[in-house]
Amino acid sequence: MRYERDPILAARQAQLHAALRATRNHTARLVAGLSAEDCMVQSMPDASPVKWHLAHTTWFFETFILERVQPDFVPFDPAYRVLFNSYYVGVGQRHPRPARGVLSRPGLEEIHAYRTHVERALDALLQYPLAVELLDLIELGVHHEQQHQELIVTDLKHHFWSNPLHPAHGPLSEALPVAESATRWLPFSGGLVETGRRGAGFAFDNESPRHGVWLQPFQLAARPVSNAEYLAFVEDGGYRRPELWLSEGWDTQQREGWRAPLYWHDDLRGHYTLGGDRALAPGEPVCHVSYYEADAYARWAGSRLPLEAEWEHAASSAWPLRAGEGNFLESGRLHPRAAQEQGLSQCFGDVWEWTGSAYLPYPGFQPASGAVGEYNGKFMINQMVLRGGSCATPREHIRPAYRNFFPPGARWQFSGIRLARHLRE
Amino acid sequence: MRYERDPILAARQAQLHAALRATRNHTARLVAGLSAEDCMVQSMPDASPVKWHLAHTTWFFETFILERVQPDFVPFDPAYRVLFNSYYVGVGQRHPRPARGVLSRPGLEEIHAYRTHVERALDALLQYPLAVELLDLIELGVHHEQQHQELIVTDLKHHFWSNPLHPAHGPLSEALPVAESATRWLPFSGGLVETGRRGAGFAFDNESPRHGVWLQPFQLAARPVSNAEYLAFVEDGGYRRPELWLSEGWDTQQREGWRAPLYWHDDLRGHYTLGGDRALAPGEPVCHVSYYEADAYARWAGSRLPLEAEWEHAASSAWPLRAGEGNFLESGRLHPRAAQEQGLSQCFGDVWEWTGSAYLPYPGFQPASGAVGEYNGKFMINQMVLRGGSCATPREHIRPAYRNFFPPGARWQFSGIRLARHLRE
Amino acid sequence: MRYERDPILAARQAQLHAALRATRNHTARLVAGLSAEDCMVQSMPDASPVKWHLAHTTWFFETFILERVQPDFVPFDPAYRVLFNSYYVGVGQRHPRPARGVLSRPGLEEIHAYRTHVERALDALLQYPLAVELLDLIELGVHHEQQHQELIVTDLKHHFWSNPLHPAHGPLSEALPVAESATRWLPFSGGLVETGRRGAGFAFDNESPRHGVWLQPFQLAARPVSNAEYLAFVEDGGYRRPELWLSEGWDTQQREGWRAPLYWHDDLRGHYTLGGDRALAPGEPVCHVSYYEADAYARWAGSRLPLEAEWEHAASSAWPLRAGEGNFLESGRLHPRAAQEQGLSQCFGDVWEWTGSAYLPYPGFQPASGAVGEYNGKFMINQMVLRGGSCATPREHIRPAYRNFFPPGARWQFSGIRLARHLRE
Amino acid sequence: MRYERDPILAARQAQLHAALRATRNHTARLVAGLSAEDCMVQSMPDASPVKWHLAHTTWFFETFILERVQPDFVPFDPAYRVLFNSYYVGVGQRHPRPARGVLSRPGLEEIHAYRTHVERALDALLQYPLAVELLDLIELGVHHEQQHQELIVTDLKHHFWSNPLHPAHGPLSEALPVAESATRWLPFSGGLVETGRRGAGFAFDNESPRHGVWLQPFQLAARPVSNAEYLAFVEDGGYRRPELWLSEGWDTQQREGWRAPLYWHDDLRGHYTLGGDRALAPGEPVCHVSYYEADAYARWAGSRLPLEAEWEHAASSAWPLRAGEGNFLESGRLHPRAAQEQGLSQCFGDVWEWTGSAYLPYPGFQPASGAVGEYNGKFMINQMVLRGGSCATPREHIRPAYRNFFPPGARWQFSGIRLARHLRE
Repeated sequence: MRYERDPILAARQAQLHAALRATRNHTARLVAGLSAEDCMVQSMPDASPVKWHLAHTTWFFETFILERVQPDFVPFDPAYRVLFNSYYVGVGQRHPRPARGVLSRPGLEEIHAYRTHVERALDALLQYPLAVELLDLIELGVHHEQQHQELIVTDLKHHFWSNPLHPAHGPLSEALPVAESATRWLPFSGGLVETGRRGAGFAFDNESPRHGVWLQPFQLAARPVSNAEYLAFVEDGGYRRPELWLSEGWDTQQREGWRAPLYWHDDLRGHYTLGGDRALAPGEPVCHVSYYEADAYARWAGSRLPLEAEWEHAASSAWPLRAGEGNFLESGRLHPRAAQEQGLSQCFGDVWEWTGSAYLPYPGFQPASGAVGEYNGKFMINQMVLRGGSCATPREHIRPAYRNFFPPGARWQFSGIRLARHLRE
Repeated sequence: MRYERDPILAARQAQLHAALRATRNHTARLVAGLSAEDCMVQSMPDASPVKWHLAHTTWFFETFILERVQPDFVPFDPAYRVLFNSYYVGVGQRHPRPARGVLSRPGLEEIHAYRTHVERALDALLQYPLAVELLDLIELGVHHEQQHQELIVTDLKHHFWSNPLHPAHGPLSEALPVAESATRWLPFSGGLVETGRRGAGFAFDNESPRHGVWLQPFQLAARPVSNAEYLAFVEDGGYRRPELWLSEGWDTQQREGWRAPLYWHDDLRGHYTLGGDRALAPGEPVCHVSYYEADAYARWAGSRLPLEAEWEHAASSAWPLRAGEGNFLESGRLHPRAAQEQGLSQCFGDVWEWTGSAYLPYPGFQPASGAVGEYNGKFMINQMVLRGGSCATPREHIRPAYRNFFPPGARWQFSGIRLARHLRE
Repeated sequence: MRYERDPILAARQAQLHAALRATRNHTARLVAGLSAEDCMVQSMPDASPVKWHLAHTTWFFETFILERVQPDFVPFDPAYRVLFNSYYVGVGQRHPRPARGVLSRPGLEEIHAYRTHVERALDALLQYPLAVELLDLIELGVHHEQQHQELIVTDLKHHFWSNPLHPAHGPLSEALPVAESATRWLPFSGGLVETGRRGAGFAFDNESPRHGVWLQPFQLAARPVSNAEYLAFVEDGGYRRPELWLSEGWDTQQREGWRAPLYWHDDLRGHYTLGGDRALAPGEPVCHVSYYEADAYARWAGSRLPLEAEWEHAASSAWPLRAGEGNFLESGRLHPRAAQEQGLSQCFGDVWEWTGSAYLPYPGFQPASGAVGEYNGKFMINQMVLRGGSCATPREHIRPAYRNFFPPGARWQFSGIRLARHLRE
Repeated sequence: MRYERDPILAARQAQLHAALRATRNHTARLVAGLSAEDCMVQSMPDASPVKWHLAHTTWFFETFILERVQPDFVPFDPAYRVLFNSYYVGVGQRHPRPARGVLSRPGLEEIHAYRTHVERALDALLQYPLAVELLDLIELGVHHEQQHQELIVTDLKHHFWSNPLHPAHGPLSEALPVAESATRWLPFSGGLVETGRRGAGFAFDNESPRHGVWLQPFQLAARPVSNAEYLAFVEDGGYRRPELWLSEGWDTQQREGWRAPLYWHDDLRGHYTLGGDRALAPGEPVCHVSYYEADAYARWAGSRLPLEAEWEHAASSAWPLRAGEGNFLESGRLHPRAAQEQGLSQCFGDVWEWTGSAYLPYPGFQPASGAVGEYNGKFMINQMVLRGGSCATPREHIRPAYRNFFPPGARWQFSGIRLARHLRE
């Protein structure tokens, strides 16, 4: 008699298989217009070559799935185990991060073959009813690849901008017409709220456990800070007034010579986008600011950044998204849009929103077991939490409890600002 | 008719005047045995020469009190305004921090004259009934000087240790006999607790406002981690196992070549103390560890560091101290002692305790107005909170709500570890 | 009547045109087996991508010839003027040297088109009887491109070695059989000798003027130091004995962790070559040593490095080369060979030979006028002279008076050692 | 019968004993006005505290004389062997150079006691007829201490200038009146000249052996370049015109932000001297310029720097000095004076003169044997030769063959410029 699988698990496996294929195909489409040379460049130590992203996301499946499961596992190339390991000490040695741009070999063609090879092996594997722990790992691999889709976009933007030719990666995003208006403030009463992973869907370990947090009453801006608003800060001497800055932030911008957000032109009228150089659209969310800049702007504006629990509490009211809502990676626009609504808007997509919360473990946090336990936990120091996803985030990747994190000086992500303030009774 | 002052304010002023004198005198006694050459050295950019501390604490009173109040104010030396400004941008230029060791002029004698000059002027000023805002500033100056008393001790320890002769600053602290015993765990039920400044006594702006925090049930170790316990971690390969470390912590200890706490000998049997080199006493609290090491130790021990609200909630039960309780600066011992009790002990004095909380503003935080508003708020990034004071902290300086903060790699403070863990129901 | 050109100049122009074509074609053949990705990599700031070399040598002709001469000059791409300027301040801005690896655009195909475009324009130009100053510049461009042919090889070797896969660029060079024998010393009597440019052939400005130098009597080794000899130095603790080293050399090797020449394996038995990893051949000249290592070796061997005037005086007796003599770029071997002769041998080709002379102007030195005057003169500090060319030098490029120069810590050139000593009467 | 010593040796020993005492006493007088704090400061890694100089010069005698000779040698303090070793690897470990400012212990009083102790032991030793090798070492120690007298002055000047108070070390040097006049050029015919140590007097090993050098005809400026002349270079955009600079020189001045010689005020009208801040005297020799600046100035002036053999050949005609001639350390002026004569003047004293010669071994150079062989030879790379002594050099210390050397970027010595040029026939 043929083995009958639990239909719920069977359905999950089928759905996961479809998501796996869709995600892998999406990655391939994302890089379709790039030359082998384009895929080679590492324009700063924090960024990686596109080719490396393509290989590393494949390495993840090969190392954490195939190598553990295939009875007759043979690596596609034994050298890849080291070359494409990002930071998993549990897996062994790693090629040094700042030297990823030196790998002309393996070539892009070989990496595409590697991708196909691993995809076929995963397809074959998914013919069998797999243990739930394996499904969990494959699902992790899908979400891992979605993260790297976003990094492919942000790293490519930095790379193309570093080239004096400022090449465009796609069509220029048209600015939507927008009626400039002052920030609207939405009130929240605080008290004991729940925060963290909700329901049975996928979540990273750092979103758990769900737990109670006590909030003071607060207000949240209905939309992110716009270019026009940020320009007013710059023109008011924002980058020349140390009293507006955290001490480290001031030292950083002095040392780095910051005078405006990353990618802005010196004349404060245009900026580099993935569609090429373009005039600043006043109504679009300001983007590519560090935490230091977001914090200084908030101080200048007499406000503050929201706590991550405040943000999550408020944004949950705007979730789930309606069909077609939100400016995500799938639109291909790769640029934030101006706000079009009056209520709480743009929590998801457009720009990541810096919060005033440090990236630290939730009470009772347990990292996943094995090497994938290195995914999140070991970075919980000197980073701040960002929420909500950006125009480079895959739509399926984001949720209210999602915690992104970067050091306070990072600017090459699509990171913007939403203000909060305490309720003055 | 003679002006009759509110007797409560009058009493406060009298008490403050006494505290001012006591604190200034204590500083003088603290450095009495040091030569002018001893007071010159800056052994690393984070530390300052003793002479600079003596001048800077005086500068604080001259700049924030005398200059604003004296009708015929003449600075002791106009150059001091720049030379002894630490980081107050609102006051103007500053001599660069890493170059403080270059100031052979003004000499120590001149700085002692400066101290006397300002003390006399303050004495004269305190003959008048002063406005309450001035009393607040003088009180801030007293607490500011107490902080620098601790820094004099920690900077001097680093300086003497940097000299290959390892000179002693005082008599060798004798180790108390102690029965080694396993950590005892004390349970706390959590829920909504209050945290932050309590009552009318002095507090820094960063301790306010008092506010509610929701805690999960937790356990706290009765005493800090001992040298013997930490040695077991070291001997278990603690510094060679990356899986125990935060990623930045691992990179830091590899780069810096850490193999044990600061001041430990290479043979793991002795360490440098302000009384000279001495054998490690197994029962004494481990000291001079960074946050990275505290965190790695906690992970190795299957525990975690306490949140600052957990710590404060627990420690409040041990407050106020009984007469003679606690190992503080006043004892002159300048070295932590072994725990002598069974219950919750050594929360105050002995060693600062790293918490797992980032140093960030409390909800509704307002920095003090004017240049003294730079005292705390502008450092609220990339630092972790420590609680409870150390053997180098003046006893009057500490309280349950007190928030100390240092970057996670700092080791030259008397910083130790108290473990916490979630209650496993 | 048709213009009749001076036949000598006409012959020179014809010969130069042939040399130009031959050199350009040789460059193309040199990179024929490389992928576009291979041509992208900059493995250290001192090295450049192959693609950059291909473009820069073309930029040289476009900027210094076409732009000045063509009546209707239109640049191939105006951006190239900045992108491919190496260090000519007189020409204007330059793309920063360490960021040459970021230029995925223009792609390799476009650079090949650029090369063809400029070559055709030069061909057209050379239909006319050109002024002698132009011929001089074209000749300079040919020799400039020959220098970059060598750099293509040395930079590629460093790049491939930086890749953990250690790819090979060509067939493995077979080691010639050799009878190991002690160094033979050849005596020279010294006195007043002439040094510098001789005759009418091409020479760089730094080889002039020819002038007298007074030499003491000296001896020169008949052949370069071999791998076997250098290995004896290493095994005698050469890298652990500070008394053998210049103070800066010792500091450099300690800081960089040198234990053997660049490209040697840790086990001292093999090394990386452009044919892949291979066993060390004892009789081959040691290669890829810095001046510091050459100097330390000489001290260990009780000798010294030759002065450049000594070297030139001796090597002139071995010049011109016989047909087929010498191991140069044209052989495609790209690896030094073992000495096969008894007399003074291998002065030309195989390995550059460090001299004990600093790279400084000859008495009466005049840099060429215009921007090409920046070619040599402005580097005359903190560099040492090397003589004789290597297995990566085009044969036509070398001559007895040729002065190559690198900082004393450089190791990625094919640099070796020939010993000298004072005559003990 | 009593031992009768060779009267020549006896006279030499008596003379040496007197020189030893005079030099030691001179050192003591030189630092007489400094506080213990003044003697502590290390204002940059290249400079050392005065106290360190006092101890190190004493260590030299203790280590190289007393330790080898005294039958019952007991070190004054065993720790000093490491603390005050500068760079003699042959003697053993050294305290790290950049950490010399951390040594508050031993205190200045203790170092004075150390000096007295060693001086008495040397006095006792010199009661005996000593072997000639010992006399040579004592003589070396005297000249070594003279070098450190100059370093005491130059390091102190840098230290006091680093203090924003700009304290003065002595009376302000008055500027001599001077009639500004153009450079006079003195012709020399060149040919075979002798260079290097001459006669039986003391010389460092790097001045030997005396040997022949062939010189082209040349001209030498009668006096060093003046402040007025250098100011014309600055005001002609000298620091903004890269074509005037060596490539490394340009990079250095851009990175360091040089706009004028070290110690000049930003307004180009005054400078810091050891007598305090003072107006620039137009006729005084420009001072505290690096080789890069000297070279750029010479290029701007259509000249070049002299070779060391040219300088020595010319300066020998001005040697020996007449009684009272020359501005040396003994005058206590510590500042260069304006030229007062028409012929070749100021070769000795006032300012060291950068030559265009790299500091390399003379043909047949043999370092002294033993650890003192590290005195000179191991620094023969990446340094340029300076000649003639300065206003901070003891008069007895200088001679025509004397070779001083510093890296091309050093500016804190009293280093100036004398021009040379080739004879245009």
